[in-house]
Amino acid sequence: MKLFYSPGACSVGIHVILEEIGKPYELGLVALKEGAQHKPEYVAINPKSKVPALLRDDGSLLTEFPVIAMWLAKTNPEARLVPTDLEGETRCAEMLDYVCGTIHPQGFTRQFRTANFTPREEDFPKVVEQGKALAAKYFDVLQSTWKGDTWVLPSGYSVADAALFFVEYWATRRSGMTLPPRLATHLEAMLARPAVQRALAQEGLPA
Amino acid sequence: MKLFYSPGACSVGIHVILEEIGKPYELGLVALKEGAQHKPEYVAINPKSKVPALLRDDGSLLTEFPVIAMWLAKTNPEARLVPTDLEGETRCAEMLDYVCGTIHPQGFTRQFRTANFTPREEDFPKVVEQGKALAAKYFDVLQSTWKGDTWVLPSGYSVADAALFFVEYWATRRSGMTLPPRLATHLEAMLARPAVQRALAQEGLPA
Repeated sequence: MKLFYSPGACSVGIHVILEEIGKPYELGLVALKEGAQHKPEYVAINPKSKVPALLRDDGSLLTEFPVIAMWLAKTNPEARLVPTDLEGETRCAEMLDYVCGTIHPQGFTRQFRTANFTPREEDFPKVVEQGKALAAKYFDVLQSTWKGDTWVLPSGYSVADAALFFVEYWATRRSGMTLPPRLATHLEAMLARPAVQRALAQEGLPA
Repeated sequence: MKLFYSPGACSVGIHVILEEIGKPYELGLVALKEGAQHKPEYVAINPKSKVPALLRDDGSLLTEFPVIAMWLAKTNPEARLVPTDLEGETRCAEMLDYVCGTIHPQGFTRQFRTANFTPREEDFPKVVEQGKALAAKYFDVLQSTWKGDTWVLPSGYSVADAALFFVEYWATRRSGMTLPPRLATHLEAMLARPAVQRALAQEGLPA
């Protein structure tokens, strides 16, 4: 298996999951800052021009963070990264989609790829502030609806934690935001996991 | 069960799925144009302030289009709306996420909620054009990677078709876009389904 990633992109969440599973895999660098996702070599592999993407052992490619996360969890049941009952799996998928379909694109893409939102540089600060305000609102929703203990699902650690991790990491390391208490505790617990430490070190990111 | 929807919003895809299943359900109107999603009555039901949301018979709420779609498909296996093997389910989920996590927010939110992208009205036409260009690019990716026949999955009709339907409908009915051949044929096939016709009629939308 080969994970196509860019250092510090949301793909770090899948990187964490692969480290949790602990089976051999390769990393394929797609440097988003250099626009490598749009180069013909990568478009031939992934026409969506996005990371993460997972090249599986049968040669087929899997895309979309929630889908890769769920597939890895289900094909490695011994790692216990997704609840085995439908209701638990559904709540796990709901968290994956909230992080990857709302918090990331609405909150953080505004901050990190501001030019995709407004054509005018003088408006960048306004758009960045709007992104931070939205991210803060989404984090407040998670704080007020938190059902788990340390981990976000009541059933324990899961791929949903690896997704929540990357937006918490961005918020504190790149955006200078303060997390609500549940999420701050969650981030600390994630940073204490050896799998998270290995993934960060491999991508050259500070813990 | 009760589906919280707004006429013509992406919730129409879940509305179609409920009509395909054919069991009784209620509709709860949340008029996005009037900002009803932010009113205290609805925030108390769904803190995320989004549609679709599904109030289940046990009183719990389910959010996120891909999650609601997959849960409805799995709890109504007789409707055969999701492949029963892991690989088929994974490809179905991948399509749900591409539509709901990329095509909708990157392509169409730019066109329909332009003020969320730029603070300046004179820049609206540029942002709308960018949205149309992105949507066209995403549709081209689907055209060139299409694995099914009429329906998008090779295994046949599924909830992924109901998701693809709502962006195709927006593209042709609201954005004046022309779809690539596979998607144009798909939209016609969707519009011929009685479940789709009933959902559109109930929301007061033209076929």
